[in-house]
Formats: sequence, C-alpha cells, structure tokens
Amino acid sequence: MNTDVATATIWVMKFGGTSVATPDLMRNAVARIQERRNEGHRIVVVVSAMGDTTDRLLELARQLSAKPSRRELDVLLSAGEQQSMALLSIALEEAGIAAISFTGRQGGIRTDDRYSQARIVSIDPSRIHSELERNRVVVVAGFQGENEQQDVTTLGRGGSDTSAVALAAALDAKGCEILTDVDGVYTADPRVVPRARRLERLSSDEMLEMATFGARVLHGRSVELARRYNVPLVVASSTRSGPGTRIEPPKEEPEMEQVVVRAITDDPAVRKVSLLHVPDTPGVAAKVFQVLGEAQVPVRLIVQAQGSKKHNDITLILPSDAPLDEALLQKMVDIVGGESWLLDENVALLSVVGEGIAREPGIAAKIFSVLAEEKVNIDVISTSNLVISCVVPESCLVRAAAALHAALVETE
Amino acid sequence: MNTDVATATIWVMKFGGTSVATPDLMRNAVARIQERRNEGHRIVVVVSAMGDTTDRLLELARQLSAKPSRRELDVLLSAGEQQSMALLSIALEEAGIAAISFTGRQGGIRTDDRYSQARIVSIDPSRIHSELERNRVVVVAGFQGENEQQDVTTLGRGGSDTSAVALAAALDAKGCEILTDVDGVYTADPRVVPRARRLERLSSDEMLEMATFGARVLHGRSVELARRYNVPLVVASSTRSGPGTRIEPPKEEPEMEQVVVRAITDDPAVRKVSLLHVPDTPGVAAKVFQVLGEAQVPVRLIVQAQGSKKHNDITLILPSDAPLDEALLQKMVDIVGGESWLLDENVALLSVVGEGIAREPGIAAKIFSVLAEEKVNIDVISTSNLVISCVVPESCLVRAAAALHAALVETE
Repeated sequence: MNTDVATATIWVMKFGGTSVATPDLMRNAVARIQERRNEGHRIVVVVSAMGDTTDRLLELARQLSAKPSRRELDVLLSAGEQQSMALLSIALEEAGIAAISFTGRQGGIRTDDRYSQARIVSIDPSRIHSELERNRVVVVAGFQGENEQQDVTTLGRGGSDTSAVALAAALDAKGCEILTDVDGVYTADPRVVPRARRLERLSSDEMLEMATFGARVLHGRSVELARRYNVPLVVASSTRSGPGTRIEPPKEEPEMEQVVVRAITDDPAVRKVSLLHVPDTPGVAAKVFQVLGEAQVPVRLIVQAQGSKKHNDITLILPSDAPLDEALLQKMVDIVGGESWLLDENVALLSVVGEGIAREPGIAAKIFSVLAEEKVNIDVISTSNLVISCVVPESCLVRAAAALHAALVETE
Repeated sequence: MNTDVATATIWVMKFGGTSVATPDLMRNAVARIQERRNEGHRIVVVVSAMGDTTDRLLELARQLSAKPSRRELDVLLSAGEQQSMALLSIALEEAGIAAISFTGRQGGIRTDDRYSQARIVSIDPSRIHSELERNRVVVVAGFQGENEQQDVTTLGRGGSDTSAVALAAALDAKGCEILTDVDGVYTADPRVVPRARRLERLSSDEMLEMATFGARVLHGRSVELARRYNVPLVVASSTRSGPGTRIEPPKEEPEMEQVVVRAITDDPAVRKVSLLHVPDTPGVAAKVFQVLGEAQVPVRLIVQAQGSKKHNDITLILPSDAPLDEALLQKMVDIVGGESWLLDENVALLSVVGEGIAREPGIAAKIFSVLAEEKVNIDVISTSNLVISCVVPESCLVRAAAALHAALVETE
C-alpha cells in the first residue's frame, strides 16, 4: 500500500470457477488479492464463471437445440464471466479496494473468429494500463475476447488460464498466479497417492508433460503460452495463503547431472485401440493421424512395434471423451491395410515426469522393476526426454501410482 | 415468406422476462415471431432477462455489498439479457429461422452514462439493417446500451419496453408489439374486476394515464416515447395468437362529442402523506416537489385544499416503494411552515381513464354517486383531461373498482 504506484510491478491473478462459486469464496479471493496488493503490486484479476454456471447455460441451450450455433453459444457462455467479474469487483470495492471490471473486449483481447475455440491474435492493454495507473484493481473476464466483426468469442478449453497468461505477457507482468482449489502442483494426484506432496517449483516443460498426461491443475495451452513468452507461473490456493508452486521457464543449460523425477501423473480417462496385422510400410502412422485429425480425436500415444516381421500391430491411446465409433475404427484399419481392430476401455495412463529422465536408463529400469514387484502388467511403454508413460490395467492404477511414487519421488 | 424482402416493412417484437422464462416459453415466442414473419415483415426482437434472473443476480450483489457500484451492477444485470438473447436465437435457428443476437452496443444503442438509469441518446441501426437485409431475425438485448466510455449501461425501470420502442422509431418500423403474459390491455385489472374485458384500441394518452395510475402492462416511459415518435404499439399475448390491444397516437382533432371511459385502474401500492396546517402562501407545492425530488420520491398526486382559511392541509399520494422516513416528512413540514404530518399506508388509488372525461361533468357525478351507494369514503379526488383519480381506503378497493367498472365501462 505504501509503494510508489508509478514504479510498481504488475501481477496477474486468475481465479477459476470453483474459487468464486459463492459470495464467501469471492471474499476469500479478495483476501488473496489484498495480500498481493500489500506487497506493492498493481493487480490484474482474471476470473472464470461462477461454479456450475457454464454447465447450466449449456444445458439450457441443449434443451433448445441439439446443435446450437457456435456464435450464439459464445454469446451465451461469455455472460457467465461477465457476472462473476462484476460481482468480484463489487466484493473488492466493499473491502475498500478500488476496482473496475472489463469484458474481454474492454480488456483489449482480440481473437480470430473461430467461435467456441478462438485464438488470441493481439492484446491492446491501454485501457487496463490507464486504470492501473489510477490505482485500481482491474478485473477482466477470462475465456473471452472479441473478433473483427465485434462479436464476442470464447477461447475453448483452458480458456481462462490462457487469458491470464496472455494478459501477463502483454502487460509485461512480473508473474501470473493461478489460484485454484488446491495449494499447488503435487508430485501425484493426492486423491490417488495420499503421500503426494506439493512441489516448490518445476519447469514449464515438466508442467506441460504433466498437463498432457493427466494433471488437471493447469491446461497445457496456457503453460505453452507462458513458456513462449517467459511468463513465470505460480499455482496456489484461492482460499488460504501459501507459496504454491512456481513454474519457471526451462533453463537454457539444464544441469545434466541432476536428473530429478518431479511427479507421477495418472489418467484413467483413456482407452486403447489396437490396429492388428498392419503391413510394415512407411507412413502408416501419418495416415492414422490424418484420419483421427479429421475426426477431431487427439492422440495421447502411438506405439508401433518395431520387429523383424512384415506385419506389426499399432497401438493408440486416445482420450475417453473423444468421439470414436466402429466406422472410424474400421476406417483406420482400412487406410493402413490392417486386418482388424481391438478396443479396450479398461486401461489407464501412468506417467513419470522429470527433466532428462529418459537419458537416465536407471529410471526406466526402476519403473519396470517396481511395477513387476507389484505384479502390474505393463501394456505399452513410451518415452520422451521428459516423460516415461506406461499403459496399465485401470484396476491397478492406484497401487501402481503409489508404488512408483514411493520408489521415485519419496526417496529423494 | 413469399414477400419481397427489399420492400418488406420492419416489425419490432418485445418479449418480457416471464415470456422467455423457460425453453418451452421460448418456443412459444418463436411461434409468435414466425406468425409475424409469415405476414411478410422483417423482424427485430427485443428480449428481457429470463424469469427471475435479474432478481437472482441482484441478490448475489447484495450478499457482497449493501451499496454495490452502479457501473458494476449494470455489467452484472446486462448479462441476463445476453443469455436470453443467445438462447432465443438458438431457438429460432432450431425452428429453421435464420437469426442473430446483438447486445445493446451491437444494436447501436448509445446512452448517457447514468449507470442503472441511463437514457438513450442515439441509435445507429446500420448493423441491424444489414442483418435484416440478409433475411435474418435480429434479436437485441433489451434494457441495455453503451455509453461513450464503451461501458455497458442499463435503462432502469421499463427499460426493455423503452429499448423496443426506441428501436422501432430508429428503424422506422411499422409497429412495436409488446408480448407479455396477458393478451392485451384490459378495462380494469382482471384479478380485481373479473368482468374486465380486453380493449381493441386506446390512445397513447390514455395508456400513459393508465400506466401512471396503476396499470402494470406497460411502463409510462415507453408509451411516452411511442407517442413522441408516432410508433404504433400493440400489446398482445406471448403464448397464443390474438389481435391484442392497439395503442395509437392521439387524434389531432378528438371527437368532441364522443367521450368514452376506457378503463378503471387500481393501485394499492401507494400511501398518503398529509402536511397539516400549512400557511396559504404561493409556491408551497413547488417547495414540496423540490424536497421530494432531491430524495428521488415521485409524486402521484398532490392536492391542496383551496378554502378561505389562512391555513390549509396538503395531501400527497406517493408510491409505497419510494424511500420515505420521519426525517424527510419533518423536512417537508418545516419547509412549508406546517405544524405536523400524518402518514396513512392503508389507502389505494382508483382511477377512471378516458379522453376528455373531465370535460363531461356527468362522469365525475356518476363516480361520486356510485361510490356513495357502495359506502366507499372518497378521501381525495383529482381530475385532469384524461383521468379522474380517487383515494379510497384500501379495504374498499375491489368493491369500488367493480362498481365503477359496472357503471362506467360495462354499460357502453
């Protein structure tokens, strides 16, 4: 409060829907904002729609149409953030903190015109700057922007996190804090592995892999954006004080010697598709990606057994909520010249994340031996520089996650 | 549908909150729109927030602050119309009717910056015109506009009706139809006088007096605007077909001979304030109006007994929901040099409306004799060219209204 505003740094704070779901939770958010403000920062807040507002509005739209217009859905859903931004500003003013709310448009967020999955094309932060100079907290609606036709657009999944990181980049903020219902990023999902502990820090590369392989605390899109624009991210609790987890840009020269397993992530919401007896010709994987891309099915993993045989099996791990039917499965078999397909819903993806772990052969070996001891059958294994993923039977997931956590995280 | 769009007339239809409160009611609204469209009109729809949305949002704001910022309240409440306009567009598209929703801003509605009670300063209908030319139904959010600072504003009481009439004027529409939960304007409130019947037509002057003296079907502000811009108004049912009630500009030369009592209106939501023993000096009423104006208390009636005495009593009829406390009452007594005040909450206002009725002495006489027969004590009586109002005990209201309706309306 005693800080010279003209030289103060900007700090962006994003509150998710569960963190502003009730008036009491809004007051909690105000307390977090007050803390940062007392540290001398100028504050920009990005806010999601309250609690289940978005689901409620979507349900109303579905009662009217099986396939509502995307433009109108964006108009509808963006009203949710408009409500929460006004209410949070009212709560701030009530606590004696000068505040003003802005829609995405008023916050200068311009997007392309892909309704319901728009991309930010530019941010003009001039109006935000001028309100910050008046020592006001600026509350901006997350998840939304405006296209060239002056229509509201929404940013799709993880949209509010993306708004927050993009604003932090445009405002050259000192950091972007994601406030949520957990107090940081954990070494595993505490609901699956009770001994999981909060990480003090991790790299944005590590966070990105964790987001891709099941960690739900941050959406990969916002982590990517933070990495690209060198925005320091913090994940912290919206209801109580605490340091949270710092997510930092990866070091240019990673410490080669020090390979650290950061976390175990689990994702039960996957299914395994096997395309059987596929001729071993080049470009087979590309054809599969093309078919799935057209059907808007994202691929988590693809594994092609590299044997000496003329025919191989191709195994795909796909998210459970992606559209997939028999016609699509048959189309994949046909395009790669395979014989048939198999579908297994009872699998889960278990991943070990840490910078450079794939360079350290001891870690993969340890994973194999731990899971063998636990009598967990490993179905598929895939490695990259940052992550080693195994597909295991869904029934073994909790046991396997706890065992890997004990052997690789708790020993450090 | 077979009409040449280029030469088609524009028709504005306004649906209130109770008329779009559920998906089923929205489909009813779509049927009304389809009927007008089939008549060859190009349609602009103005829509309010669904059902109790506005009250729900206000309640949330009140849980956060006893005196929330008016700017933020406008941001909050305008989200309600944004939801209903998107949902109604989705319902129209589902019925095969091309539609697009616009906020007040997108509809070109510019206002002054009096948040929560803004006045429309101009309308730029170019974007609406271009969508109408593409044969789309344009759904515009009622109750809202944008000020010079590019902030959303709301229009206060009766705001959506005002939006509709103002758009009809700016678009040079053939008419503006207010669709609501009754099928027209009645000769009395049917809940009070069961024998009340729907009026085919009445003049905007008559409607204005009815709105002022208790008829809740239309807000006086929109009727005034319709009269000023010569916009023909229709009040009709949102749930079923019907001619409704036409409200027409008053004739330049009223038919002097034909004095018609149009309707009996009742308003139980009033209270009577008496300022006692006030010196009979000029300008006393002006002083009272000034005090009440500063306190934002509208005056329904003011009656000053014109006797030969040096001191008179001043009687005021004020709406029950206007702010009024002992300090304000004492302030009025002091400023007019009176002795004391009396407050009576148990009164009601009963009014007889019709062009030229005050010129026809027989009507006032009839009112007196009917109420005397019913043993209803008349407390105050006030006449203008269009209306004769009596203040009666609230307990006699239903009996008095039925008797006046029988004697003055049902006999015609």
